[in-house]
Amino acid sequence: MTYQHILVAVDLSEDSHILVSKGAALAEKLGAKLSLIHIDTNYAELYTGLIDINMAEAQYRMADNAQEQLQDLAKKANYPVTHTFVGSGDLSDEICNTIKQSDVDLMICGHHQDFWSKILSSTKQLINHTPVDLLMVPLH
Amino acid sequence: MTYQHILVAVDLSEDSHILVSKGAALAEKLGAKLSLIHIDTNYAELYTGLIDINMAEAQYRMADNAQEQLQDLAKKANYPVTHTFVGSGDLSDEICNTIKQSDVDLMICGHHQDFWSKILSSTKQLINHTPVDLLMVPLH
Repeated sequence: MTYQHILVAVDLSEDSHILVSKGAALAEKLGAKLSLIHIDTNYAELYTGLIDINMAEAQYRMADNAQEQLQDLAKKANYPVTHTFVGSGDLSDEICNTIKQSDVDLMICGHHQDFWSKILSSTKQLINHTPVDLLMVPLH
Repeated sequence: MTYQHILVAVDLSEDSHILVSKGAALAEKLGAKLSLIHIDTNYAELYTGLIDINMAEAQYRMADNAQEQLQDLAKKANYPVTHTFVGSGDLSDEICNTIKQSDVDLMICGHHQDFWSKILSSTKQLINHTPVDLLMVPLH
């Protein structure tokens, strides 16, 4: 038995479709479910200095926009996408919760091999916390 | 098109069979080739203080022993293993060379999520250097 539910984590950059199509190809071969997740990690931090912004509404609008982009990626996947998740907050916490709630057994994410990513990558955070296998795709 | 040649990196500890059977199950589903690699990373460093040891012979014997253990893992894989590689030296250099020479397109390795591994893991080295996708399996 291999994987049953594959979750692809995307940052909604241009590279996202590479990850989604890898996930779709693998899910098709393995007969697994495919889901997408986007975590908006630094939204809260960006706005801490401003007090007159309607945080709830702005955050809602942002999530809505991310959900739209995920749906768009899902449409282009050439494979049925079961769930599209949008979250905010700590990347590894949010992803680990989703993994447990949705019985995900393989997670796919990208990793840039440039100087800053080597030091600050959220992929490295994930490695230390993921309860399931992690397929890491190098992006250039 | 998914993966054609899967390379499983093992440290020959008790967890190695977990990685090999994951690799075998995936290779079977994808119709890919399966190979195993063990890199003896700190052999040279261990013996730098001794001058009367026959380094060449000792290293040869150690590689021989590792090759035997790899063959043993290969036998238990329930899937044909194409190559078993034994190397010594820098982990990521050696593995990247093997990947290029053997047209590997997916690498599987384990990662312990304990305190020291989080800081010193060779998996993290790999992440920054691997030219191909890396499937990381958390080990407990």
